[in-house]
Amino acid sequence: MNEFELIARLTKELPSNQTVLAGAGDDCALLDLGLPDKLLLLKTDAVVEGIHFTEDAPPGKIGHKALGRCLSDIAAMAGTPTAALITIGLPKYFEPEFVVKIYGGISALAKKFEVAIVGGETTTNPERLFISIAMLGTVARGRQILRSGAKVNDAIFVTGELGGSQKGRHLEFEPRLTEARWLSEHFCIHAMIDLSDGLAGDLQHILKASSVGAELLKTAVPISRAAKSQARTGTRAKAAFAAALTDGEDFELLFTLAGGDAVKLLDSWREKFPGLKLSCIGKIVASAGVTVRDKNGTRALSEHGYVHLS
Amino acid sequence: MNEFELIARLTKELPSNQTVLAGAGDDCALLDLGLPDKLLLLKTDAVVEGIHFTEDAPPGKIGHKALGRCLSDIAAMAGTPTAALITIGLPKYFEPEFVVKIYGGISALAKKFEVAIVGGETTTNPERLFISIAMLGTVARGRQILRSGAKVNDAIFVTGELGGSQKGRHLEFEPRLTEARWLSEHFCIHAMIDLSDGLAGDLQHILKASSVGAELLKTAVPISRAAKSQARTGTRAKAAFAAALTDGEDFELLFTLAGGDAVKLLDSWREKFPGLKLSCIGKIVASAGVTVRDKNGTRALSEHGYVHLS
Repeated sequence: MNEFELIARLTKELPSNQTVLAGAGDDCALLDLGLPDKLLLLKTDAVVEGIHFTEDAPPGKIGHKALGRCLSDIAAMAGTPTAALITIGLPKYFEPEFVVKIYGGISALAKKFEVAIVGGETTTNPERLFISIAMLGTVARGRQILRSGAKVNDAIFVTGELGGSQKGRHLEFEPRLTEARWLSEHFCIHAMIDLSDGLAGDLQHILKASSVGAELLKTAVPISRAAKSQARTGTRAKAAFAAALTDGEDFELLFTLAGGDAVKLLDSWREKFPGLKLSCIGKIVASAGVTVRDKNGTRALSEHGYVHLS
Repeated sequence: MNEFELIARLTKELPSNQTVLAGAGDDCALLDLGLPDKLLLLKTDAVVEGIHFTEDAPPGKIGHKALGRCLSDIAAMAGTPTAALITIGLPKYFEPEFVVKIYGGISALAKKFEVAIVGGETTTNPERLFISIAMLGTVARGRQILRSGAKVNDAIFVTGELGGSQKGRHLEFEPRLTEARWLSEHFCIHAMIDLSDGLAGDLQHILKASSVGAELLKTAVPISRAAKSQARTGTRAKAAFAAALTDGEDFELLFTLAGGDAVKLLDSWREKFPGLKLSCIGKIVASAGVTVRDKNGTRALSEHGYVHLS
């Protein structure tokens, strides 16, 4: 049983109640508690030393990343974050100053997006630092964007540039909260997700939830400077395009909207967010799976990279 | 810097916003998102292998305890739990069946109290199991009970029997949700907390938050059969009364209300909850600290036990 099979089994028959509009399986849980104009978003996310950051990562950046990951999930639903709780499992021997700096990184990012830190817990995790953050947010009723709304002939968009995040960006990324809310207010976005596992894997989440497929245009996928540099200098065996597809931790937005709105979106975006690239990388198609088109034809794409020439 | 000093430093200047009615420092965070009749409660709690349960604890009971601790905190605010998210850090090698059974324990307790499990995360924590649960709840506006409302001449009450929880009860306790809500609906409860650190420590949280002191009557403190048996058979150096004061993980309710309401409460309680003991164990006084009265006089009590005869 691999991780995804285990999760599928664990989440198969979870208890529910009448407040739940969307539970496990989207970026956040979506709850209706009776607010006339808003729905609630609930999310948790954990970062673990040696898995999500190295022992020598600066503590402020560890805190930034821990909170930023949750904020990125709120962004993926076009939500607004409200309040967070911080759970820290501390090794037996730790420097209090180190923990204070982690909180400093969390607090700085929280202030930027007016998120209240309303408590939490310190406990013991003897061998390594473990940080779990719980986040409450809201989304204007009717403006939430799920993974399941992609439609055939939608254009597929991605913000920013992909790949090579481990070179540094994974500790410093800006959650795309402002951009996601603007999108939901000005365009009819059909489906959205934030890129945490990598374009190839996260696009599949949208496709499966929406029962559609996708065709990507290879030259349109934006590749980060870090991924290009790693490929060019040979510091890494992975080609730049493969890195953009599978590296993960980009924390950019991936979304779809009707193909007819694509040009208008690109024009408005350039005016509103001149500093952040927006790329149309392909389109939604009826047949399941992902294909990538380049000058040599199309190839099928798995979550882990290419499968074969078709 | 000890744990409490660290927490004091971390929580000194946390970011806040206009939704926050109570942040760090009570059983749950209390938020006002504009629901006409309700406030929101937010809580996280973690259990770690080797700290909160032993390696050989049955997985269903580990799940029960993990969720039960959060529910007990919702109870301490007189709230109703709505939805929870489960974060599990798994060792490198684990039995999927073991994780499924943990979820079974969580789900069974969730169903009992109509709590939806709306997702979560599995991640890696190589050396030991780490479970963090985030809980959203509600409380009727005006019926929330904080730690800070205790008044001089209040009677102090505790549910159940205390001490010796490690013999088994800490994995099987029933969160006092129904009882707490009944209390808030029928009586003017001034302050409440759930007993997780032990009566001596948790009473101090109420006293400090309320700027008052307490006098306990030694013979009135209900001692569990487990604590008495451990003391009698000499399987443990701790006296039964000391165990009731300091063992922790009782997950009973400790609360105060006006002394004049005490008899009426005891009568109503016996009728409503005949199977659960309710004990009046002392009163709130003006001078700070806790004293314990017995036939030999009064002694000061620290969080860790007696200080001296006065």
